[in-house]
Parts: sequence; structure tokens; C-alpha cells
Amino acid sequence: MQHFSYDHLYRFTYDMLKKIGCPDEDAQLGAKVLLSADLRGVDSHGVARLSGYVRLWEKGRINPTPKVSVTYETPSTAVVDGDAGLGLVVAPFAMKVAMEKAKNVGTGWVSVKNSNHYGIAGYHAMLALEEDMIGISMTNASPLVAPTFSKERLLGTNPISVAIPAKEEPAFVLDMATTTAANGKLEMLQRKGQDTPSGWVQDKAGTPTTSANGVKDGGALLPLGGDREHGSHKGYGLGAVVDILSAVLSGANYGPWAPPFVAFLDPLPNLVGEGIGHFFGAMRVDAFRPAEEFKGHMDQWIRRFRSAEPTPGHEKVLIPGDPERELEIIRKLEGIPLLDPVVQDLSELGKKFGVNF
Amino acid sequence: MQHFSYDHLYRFTYDMLKKIGCPDEDAQLGAKVLLSADLRGVDSHGVARLSGYVRLWEKGRINPTPKVSVTYETPSTAVVDGDAGLGLVVAPFAMKVAMEKAKNVGTGWVSVKNSNHYGIAGYHAMLALEEDMIGISMTNASPLVAPTFSKERLLGTNPISVAIPAKEEPAFVLDMATTTAANGKLEMLQRKGQDTPSGWVQDKAGTPTTSANGVKDGGALLPLGGDREHGSHKGYGLGAVVDILSAVLSGANYGPWAPPFVAFLDPLPNLVGEGIGHFFGAMRVDAFRPAEEFKGHMDQWIRRFRSAEPTPGHEKVLIPGDPERELEIIRKLEGIPLLDPVVQDLSELGKKFGVNF
Repeated sequence: MQHFSYDHLYRFTYDMLKKIGCPDEDAQLGAKVLLSADLRGVDSHGVARLSGYVRLWEKGRINPTPKVSVTYETPSTAVVDGDAGLGLVVAPFAMKVAMEKAKNVGTGWVSVKNSNHYGIAGYHAMLALEEDMIGISMTNASPLVAPTFSKERLLGTNPISVAIPAKEEPAFVLDMATTTAANGKLEMLQRKGQDTPSGWVQDKAGTPTTSANGVKDGGALLPLGGDREHGSHKGYGLGAVVDILSAVLSGANYGPWAPPFVAFLDPLPNLVGEGIGHFFGAMRVDAFRPAEEFKGHMDQWIRRFRSAEPTPGHEKVLIPGDPERELEIIRKLEGIPLLDPVVQDLSELGKKFGVNF
Repeated sequence: MQHFSYDHLYRFTYDMLKKIGCPDEDAQLGAKVLLSADLRGVDSHGVARLSGYVRLWEKGRINPTPKVSVTYETPSTAVVDGDAGLGLVVAPFAMKVAMEKAKNVGTGWVSVKNSNHYGIAGYHAMLALEEDMIGISMTNASPLVAPTFSKERLLGTNPISVAIPAKEEPAFVLDMATTTAANGKLEMLQRKGQDTPSGWVQDKAGTPTTSANGVKDGGALLPLGGDREHGSHKGYGLGAVVDILSAVLSGANYGPWAPPFVAFLDPLPNLVGEGIGHFFGAMRVDAFRPAEEFKGHMDQWIRRFRSAEPTPGHEKVLIPGDPERELEIIRKLEGIPLLDPVVQDLSELGKKFGVNF
């Protein structure tokens, strides 16, 4: 484990995105979005993925100079075509379309097709906060998750983020996969040679397992809830809604057709749409009640929950977004820790492209 | 257990709602919405609750002749004041406002204050299907749920429903509480003297328990996920979003201030808003892509998931809405089963008000 400054990793990511042909502005934005994951502690979605994006570009599956455009719209909705660009760049474009519509008619809702992995959901939802809007962000992803009673992997970890502004308190920021656990946590357990808790994974035969290698060996991640008795049909239902709003509504690939992020797996034949899909929403708070009034009540909501009496062995009740915000402060000061295999991967990537890591 | 025809229960519910002073149209609508729960198998939210509504009316907490009105609006949003009316009647009004806005600008979003329990979330979301819209419905509710690490009950079971139209296949209808299990399932286990699975309930001290009496004895229901290791912070986050969109956005009571459904518990002093809150959304499918195209892909989505290879011991993968739809067909034919205590409760209610059960 080594620590690297934000600036160091930003510079490297920016340089790499320039190397694969991104325009200057896109390389800046892409680096910023990708590294927001490292700052907020979602290590699996940050710079550790950079070489994954580059490999997709090598395969011709990422277009470094996309013409991102609105292809269909009404006063409160739009469909955005990402032109196979980096999701890191396509997503903020689409979120801004949603926010522009919210300025005009109260809310804006944008479904995106022909995109790629967009980093962490929370980054895009949080863009709305600056304008006193509620931001919503979701995306479909590589099929790694088995619906309740399914042996097959048909859904991605399909995250949902909702960001809600407050007044003096920091914003409420939910950012969650619709599975029991994210794939990144599984990879950490694999490295340590440890088992998973129950309800995270099923094996190739569709039987529950605690092997951290279960997914790698042909099994699947499980929807939030883990099994039917603990409500996995709800996690499955939520992941399905994310898939449908992101991809069926826009014309992207849905369910098992969502193209895999790993470049060594080819997309399925007979695709049902273009690229992967995202869905964004922006709601102006003052389209419902005066913003100051709303934000004052959000402060009260947050304070009441944070001051609730904790259960034995726990210090306090957390507000969604608390852990990520606290980590961001620490990592800006102390740097971002990268595991040795990630450091090695980035060094090799730099060497290959003549960029100094 | 006895079976009653839909018409019999409808007539009784309608008569009772007339008795407490509802106008004819509201009594018809209220009976229809309430009984949709019994038809769809959500027995805890159907006619079994009728005497609960009546007791709230006796306490002056339900206004049988409300002036339901839009108090604030933009082209795509509105706030509705339920005037302390039956949620069963307020909610369809608000959903129709959302749908009207969707007709004009693509989507409509309505937050409701000063309402009461609205029956099942799915009824209201499904209203959108008739117009080729995606319907969304959620509500806050009596505080029975402890956030992750909280000893206190701060949230309701805060359900989310999303209804999405298809072409030849029946619609996709998710209707889920944001807890591991609904309170109704707990009551069934209590009656049978059985324990709950893990992850459903914590006791008064904030410790996990499998006692079906845990909530009755001062404990709490747990958010979907059950505990931190299994993702309960996600269920808590979703329940929190429902609470905020339904109540903070509209000016209703949120969190622990949501007035309890049971009439023997008084609302807290120093309320932060009016009544309980709901949130509704309607999105015209053709505000994104031609409706026939979308619905054709929904058919393909549904067929692919339904035909997935099942796990050992299971027959097939279900689509959200399948179990409720199948039960509705059976119950329309064979009648609605009511437990003996419910039958007795309704008989007594009828006697008290001179309505024949």
C-alpha cells in the first residue's frame, strides 16, 4: 500500500486520457470524475479502473472524441446519445441537460444510451446540489447479478444515488449499489483469502456460497436482501427499475446484453440497443416549496437522525454521505492509498504509453 | 378463515365510508383502493384496516369531506394539500395531477402533505399504466423502523412502487416496503407463535432478535438488508429518501413526527408539518421514445428474465408484479380470505354503525 497525492493521480489520469485522444476539456473532466471515487473511498471505481478504460479504447469500444447530443426531448425530458464516449464525460453532460430543464419547468429527466462506465453515481447526482436541486443518478452495468431464483447473471450492480441539499448541515448523499455488497468488496476479500458473509454470492449452480471467488468461478452477486426470506426480490426489483429507466427508456442495451466493462469479454451478439445506459433526474427544491424553508427542515431531519440513541457498540447514527465526506477530507490531506497491484498496473500503463507515473 | 366475495366487502366498506360522512364518490373510490390490497394479497393494507381508519375519524384525525387542493405548482411539479382527508382518496387525486402535468411537459411530480394512510403504493403507481406512462408512488408512515445503528424508531416501512407498461406482457409492477419484511408478516408469525428469520427485527435494547413480538415490545423493524454487513444502510437510505420526498418536500411530518396510524397513540407534540406525506411521479414513455418501441422492448426484457434458468428448487424467475396479479385472478374467482379476528372486528364495526356485515 502506498499513498499518492490527489494532484499526482489527477495529472497521471489527465495525461493518459490525453494520450488516448480525449480533447483537453474531456481529459480534465474525466480525471476529476474518476478521482472523485478515490477521494470518497469507492476505490473500485477510481483510478484502479483507468487501465480498464484504456483497454476498452484499444478494442475500439470507447470513442475518445464523441459527439454527445440530445436526440429527443420534451420540456422536462431528453434522451442523450453518448456516441460511445467515456461515461465519465457523457454523464455530466446529461446531468446538466436535466438541470437546465429543471430550471425551466421544475424538473428534468434524462435517459442516456450509447455510453460507457460513468464512475461513481454520486458524483453526477451531487452536481444538482450547487443549484439547490435534488439530484438523482443511476446506471446499468456489466451483468454480474442473479435475480431472485435465477441461476443466470442478468443485471449489473446498478447503483442509485440521490443527493439532497441542506442548509448548515452537509448534504444528504445516498450512493448505493442495489446488491448486498459491491464487487470491489469481494475483490478485497479474495486478496485476503477470506470468506464473504452469507447473502452476498451464489455459486455457478445457483446455490448460496460464502466463497469470495464465487463470482469469478461463474457464480453471481446477489441482490440487496440476499435471499427471498430477507427480501432479495426487493433488491432485484430495484436493480430492474434502474436497468429499465437507464436502458429500455433510452435505447441502450439492457439486462444480460449490457456490454461487459472488461475488454477481454466481447459484447453478446444480437445486441438490443447501443452501449450501456444511464438515467438522471434534477428537481428544483423551490418547485415544491421555498428553498430556504426546505433546507431548514433538512437540517432538522439530519440533526434528529444523527442524534438518535445508538445501538450497543455503535457510536452514532450516520446520515447517508457521512462516511464518504469524512474520508474525502482525510484523503485530500493524507493522500489516496493504492494497493500494490494497482500501483504496478498504473506504472506499466504509464510505461506503455510514455506517461510518467 | 372465511372467504368473502369482492362485492360483499366492497359494499360493506362503501357503506362504512358513507357512514363516517364521505361523499358518495369518495366512498366508492376509497372502497376500491382499500380492497385492491386484499385482491393483490397485501392483506395487512386492505379491509383489515377499515376499523383503523374509522377510529382515526372518531378521534377527529380524518376529515371525511376534505377540500383537496393544489397549493403550489410549476409546469412539472405540484404540492397537494390533502386537508386531512383519507389517503385512499387524496392519493389518486395527486397522481392524476402528476399525470396531467406529464401530458403537458413529459413528466409530473407531486408531493403531498396533510394526508393519511393511502392503502397500497402500487394502486396509485398503476394508474399511470392506462396512459402509457411510468408511474411512481411512495409514502411515509408511522415510525416503526430503526435506521442502521439506531435504537430509536425513526422511519416508517416507507414503500416504493414503480409501474412500467409493456405491450403483450402484463406490466412490470414493483411494490415494496423498504424494510426486510412488512409489519403484516410479523403479525402473522405472532399469531402462529413462530419466530422471525434473522434480520427482520431488533428488540428494545437495539439488539437483533427473532421474536415476532419484538416490535410490539418496544423494538423496531429493520431496514432492507437487516444489518450493516448485509447492507441495511441501503434500506435505511432508501426509506430516508422516501421520507424526504414525501414529507420534507411537501411540508408534512417526517421521521419520528409522522403521526401514528393507530388511533390510541397520539401524534407527538411540536409537529414539524401537517399529516403524513406522499410522493408521486408520472413519466410519459413517449417523452423518451415512441411508446410502441418502448413497450416492445419491455416485452423482450420480461420474457428474457422470466425464461432465465432457475436455481435448484425453484420453478421460475418472477417479474415484479407476477405474484400479486396471479392472486388477483384467484381472489376475484374464489373470494377474499379473512382471518377470524378480522371477521369479528368487521362484524363489531358494522353493529356499532348499523351497517350489515
